[in-house]
Amino acid sequence: MKKTTLIKEGKAKRLYNTDETENVWVEYMDQATALNGKRKDHVEGKGTLNNQIDCMIFELLNAKGIHTDFIKKISKNEQLNLKVNIIPLEVVVRNAASGSFQRKFDVPYLQEFDQPVVEFFYKSDALDDPFINTNQAQALKIITAEEGEILQEMALRINSILKQRFAQAGLELVDFKVEFGKNSEGEIILADEISPDSCRLVDLETRASFDKDVFRKKTGDLVTVYQEVLDRLINSQEEAHV
Amino acid sequence: MKKTTLIKEGKAKRLYNTDETENVWVEYMDQATALNGKRKDHVEGKGTLNNQIDCMIFELLNAKGIHTDFIKKISKNEQLNLKVNIIPLEVVVRNAASGSFQRKFDVPYLQEFDQPVVEFFYKSDALDDPFINTNQAQALKIITAEEGEILQEMALRINSILKQRFAQAGLELVDFKVEFGKNSEGEIILADEISPDSCRLVDLETRASFDKDVFRKKTGDLVTVYQEVLDRLINSQEEAHV
Repeated sequence: MKKTTLIKEGKAKRLYNTDETENVWVEYMDQATALNGKRKDHVEGKGTLNNQIDCMIFELLNAKGIHTDFIKKISKNEQLNLKVNIIPLEVVVRNAASGSFQRKFDVPYLQEFDQPVVEFFYKSDALDDPFINTNQAQALKIITAEEGEILQEMALRINSILKQRFAQAGLELVDFKVEFGKNSEGEIILADEISPDSCRLVDLETRASFDKDVFRKKTGDLVTVYQEVLDRLINSQEEAHV
Repeated sequence: MKKTTLIKEGKAKRLYNTDETENVWVEYMDQATALNGKRKDHVEGKGTLNNQIDCMIFELLNAKGIHTDFIKKISKNEQLNLKVNIIPLEVVVRNAASGSFQRKFDVPYLQEFDQPVVEFFYKSDALDDPFINTNQAQALKIITAEEGEILQEMALRINSILKQRFAQAGLELVDFKVEFGKNSEGEIILADEISPDSCRLVDLETRASFDKDVFRKKTGDLVTVYQEVLDRLINSQEEAHV
């Protein structure tokens, strides 16, 4: 199998067709963006770190019975995915207050929630990715009521698995963003990426950030921090598989 | 029974205590506001029109088995309500696109939805009444998961009743906003007001506005339009009670 034409270049990944029509070749780039792409930096080594972290996470989710688009790791910065039709919703799960939630509701940073909070954002550059509820998403024919329930349920199951796995690596999963797609049978499966680009992680003890917030807020070196996340995941892997 | 001390003056109503502690005396004012209170006009006759319309609507909802805070009409511009603890959520139901939905999602005015859309807004002047989902409202301890379901279900039942009733008066119910409260037993009941201040109504045939939009957009005379809504409701009352 080999990669063929470029499908699209995103903020941090390039997607290519392959000679197998059902698959897509993903190349993680050494690029970091903030402010919805307005700030864009070359960050040497970021692509290989995110690809390796993402492969570990998606392998774990596959093993735990979550249907995902992940097929296999190809190289340090490449992986093979199933081609899916992306549902144009960003699904955010929060275990504690940060980011837009903290700003919108003026609550203390990292205030814990009794139950995880699920939020949907409509992926639309023209509309600036507005926050949307499932009723609105149905009215706009983005999802059906049943699909809304499946997304909510899958997002919470993924959160449980990730929360536990990151805790084994000494990290608290504050929140994360995922995207879903439909395979050729119309089944909803987890797609896109899970990495420190799309998760908020803080050290369980020091509460220091181990995610893209160090880049957004310019409070640390992204590669050093992402490398530490990867190392911690690798070092806690045996424990995780017990 | 008589009214005693002023509890609060809102945008269009004054609430008074009465000598019966469980009740509240509501006085509808001749005042119209727009732009979240920044524009404020005296509108002679508005209070009596809204009170009369609201009384008719709440009497109907009571008769249909919706638990409300409405006890009785006192005068043309006054009514007696049960005192409740207001849940700080504005609950909006939409049958077609208008207002903030239309602006946010850039869809055509009055585009019909297959299913009604329910939205919640967190009543907070400091936060500027943000749009909120039920997961977030639970995290902020505004409602429980069960209460979220009750609010959604009651809002949809109220919508069905109102949609049919306004159709009998030749009006399409585009959307409306309601508020709920809890009585002394903690039961959730419909509170606040339902009037052309809080509903979007358009003529079934001409699609002309019969609500506060004529004031917001300065496209017509508020009192003429509200009087027509009241007249149409009165004239279609026999049909409605068949």
